[in-house]
Amino acid sequence: MLCDYYYAKCAKGTAIRKMSALSRKLKNEKGESAIIDLTLGNPLLPPPEVYQKALEIVSQNTDCMRHGYSTTLGDTPARQAMADIISSFEKVLSSAENVVLTPGCTAAINVFLRSVLNPRDEVILFSPYFLEYPFYIDNCQATMKIVRTKFEENWQPNAKMLEESLTEKTKVIIINSPNNPTGVVYTEETMVKIVEVLKRYNTTHNHKIWILNDSVYRRLIEGDTFTLFDKYQYSAIAYSLSKDVSIPGERVGCIAVNPLLDTCQEFVAGIANFNEILGFMQPNRLHQFVLPIMELAVADLKQYVTSREIICECLEDLGIKFVKPHGAFYFFPKIEEGNEEEFCHLFAMNGVVVVPGSAFGECGYFRMSICQPPEIVRGWVEQFKECYRKTVHQLKEKTSAEHTIVH
Amino acid sequence: MLCDYYYAKCAKGTAIRKMSALSRKLKNEKGESAIIDLTLGNPLLPPPEVYQKALEIVSQNTDCMRHGYSTTLGDTPARQAMADIISSFEKVLSSAENVVLTPGCTAAINVFLRSVLNPRDEVILFSPYFLEYPFYIDNCQATMKIVRTKFEENWQPNAKMLEESLTEKTKVIIINSPNNPTGVVYTEETMVKIVEVLKRYNTTHNHKIWILNDSVYRRLIEGDTFTLFDKYQYSAIAYSLSKDVSIPGERVGCIAVNPLLDTCQEFVAGIANFNEILGFMQPNRLHQFVLPIMELAVADLKQYVTSREIICECLEDLGIKFVKPHGAFYFFPKIEEGNEEEFCHLFAMNGVVVVPGSAFGECGYFRMSICQPPEIVRGWVEQFKECYRKTVHQLKEKTSAEHTIVH
Repeated sequence: MLCDYYYAKCAKGTAIRKMSALSRKLKNEKGESAIIDLTLGNPLLPPPEVYQKALEIVSQNTDCMRHGYSTTLGDTPARQAMADIISSFEKVLSSAENVVLTPGCTAAINVFLRSVLNPRDEVILFSPYFLEYPFYIDNCQATMKIVRTKFEENWQPNAKMLEESLTEKTKVIIINSPNNPTGVVYTEETMVKIVEVLKRYNTTHNHKIWILNDSVYRRLIEGDTFTLFDKYQYSAIAYSLSKDVSIPGERVGCIAVNPLLDTCQEFVAGIANFNEILGFMQPNRLHQFVLPIMELAVADLKQYVTSREIICECLEDLGIKFVKPHGAFYFFPKIEEGNEEEFCHLFAMNGVVVVPGSAFGECGYFRMSICQPPEIVRGWVEQFKECYRKTVHQLKEKTSAEHTIVH
Repeated sequence: MLCDYYYAKCAKGTAIRKMSALSRKLKNEKGESAIIDLTLGNPLLPPPEVYQKALEIVSQNTDCMRHGYSTTLGDTPARQAMADIISSFEKVLSSAENVVLTPGCTAAINVFLRSVLNPRDEVILFSPYFLEYPFYIDNCQATMKIVRTKFEENWQPNAKMLEESLTEKTKVIIINSPNNPTGVVYTEETMVKIVEVLKRYNTTHNHKIWILNDSVYRRLIEGDTFTLFDKYQYSAIAYSLSKDVSIPGERVGCIAVNPLLDTCQEFVAGIANFNEILGFMQPNRLHQFVLPIMELAVADLKQYVTSREIICECLEDLGIKFVKPHGAFYFFPKIEEGNEEEFCHLFAMNGVVVVPGSAFGECGYFRMSICQPPEIVRGWVEQFKECYRKTVHQLKEKTSAEHTIVH
């Protein structure tokens, strides 16, 4: 009864869902504390205090029109609040004028892609990538093109490889920094090189290639990174008040179009149009009133930094190879023993559930989501080490047994 | 910079937006009270009291996980609450099991269509129709087929005309009752005939045609109507806690799949999958907690009935022809003088802004949205009459002047 696309591409389910379901099953069998579930990115920190206060203030306002439709672009004060957040990490300042509200970052990405893509246009993704991007590209009947980033290059995009993959059909490059699944933050140097390549291509081919930066983790960052709007006119930022304020379930996002874009106002109107005709509409009105009260508040994000340090030390102790992440709350370590499927399954059976790298387009690694405060991480880190050692030991024994049989 | 589709189908803007913008312009020029704006469906009644209480209770709960992601299908208590609402107007009872939460009814319709449609499948709409359906069908690369309903048949769908339009590509019939823009409620008799036609076609052609009932106005109804699930297995209801509780901006909707569908569980899983890969995700978490507290509460809807009576009397006084609506808060009267564009423009200049019928696929009519309590409607009804009489008078003079010139 469902469409062909479902059976071709979706019916098997994603690896994240499968591992998450396995985790639930194992917890039921062995008890909650026996299983360390590192599959999902549902943050365990509380939202900032001002969020709670804002929510109470807004909820107590009984003006009946406050739950009605907002305008197509979203309420102006909420758009301005989003603009202020974007301006806090970009050199070129945003205002309400270049911001369209969307119900979350997933909506923002879909709306942006649909606004610019014609069928059969190409979208470039750097792998490993957030596993739903390919669906979003399919939603626009566009074509996905993968440019790999490499462990050996610290998962930074390689501008030369990007240049080689550009064609006259290339319309959008999706960037996701801090990156899901690697946790890596793209550097200023990386972005300068990418922009050089695109500008050169645009000039020589009389073309306009967009950069869409999925910046949902942008405020979950340690140290330096790049700015975008000052470098490249044809750019937009998809953002959501989500993990950084610990309210990913409230679905409050936006697209900020580069205010330096020569056709910015027409473009903003076009995006708002697609936000409606795709059926997304604006974010829930209640949070549109909450937004301006929150200003730049975030959750107590230094806790993630501490948790990250604990995990870095743990992985180093175990001799696991990984690129140290400086953003989001993900790790993407290398699998040294066994194939990916074998390793992840056995690791889960031994008590640690992670997501295989192939789910993100990069086989031979696994993703761990450490969105927990340090006191929780400290509580399971020794158990994690034991499970890992046991898993590696079992895989080594299995390998040597197989070798014996072969000989 | 935007895609071809935008320039081909969207850039001109919808008639609702144009008239709404005209209304704002006229209000700025002539003063707020000089203009009666009947373009939009943003309800002016307050939400039920229990909504306000629920909001305050939920907002004060500081459990930090309450703003995180819900499960793919939505929280079970919220799904059950939606099921209870659906069960309140259907004979076959729903449960959480056959309900998927979506951020609003527009999301629900898009998700359903995308879940079942293959490219080039046909979707049948009865005209006049909600003006965004054609975009939703385009979003699935499917084809729209219009079956007209007629003023003379009280805007009830004609089963014979439906039968003649069915082909092997027909996959979905969208029904919208109470109807936007006519306000007409489809009868049990109408639905029995439609279902007969579909069952006959399914049997003779070994085919399965879906009925999707856009039921967003289902609780805004006076008198009797049909039930769906008991009549036809291949059916689903798109619903949103919206105008009936005066919170259309909060985006809390669902798809209820007919629990009697033989593959209901697989179908529900498929729908939840598309809800995610289209980027909609679940409704904001806060309202998922509000929902179960509200139970079956609605706004004080009898006020709309009173407002409707006032308008009926007013239109009759003016000798305007219209089919008396029994649901939603729309009227769709006939234009007797001048062409549609001319009439609507002049009516606006004289102080009443309405939407031309062609926006809904039916030329020669206009839509008025009366989502106001009776005390407000009474305040402008005489002004409305004057504006109408003036408009008709001017159009008659213009016509006779033109005739004079011609002769």
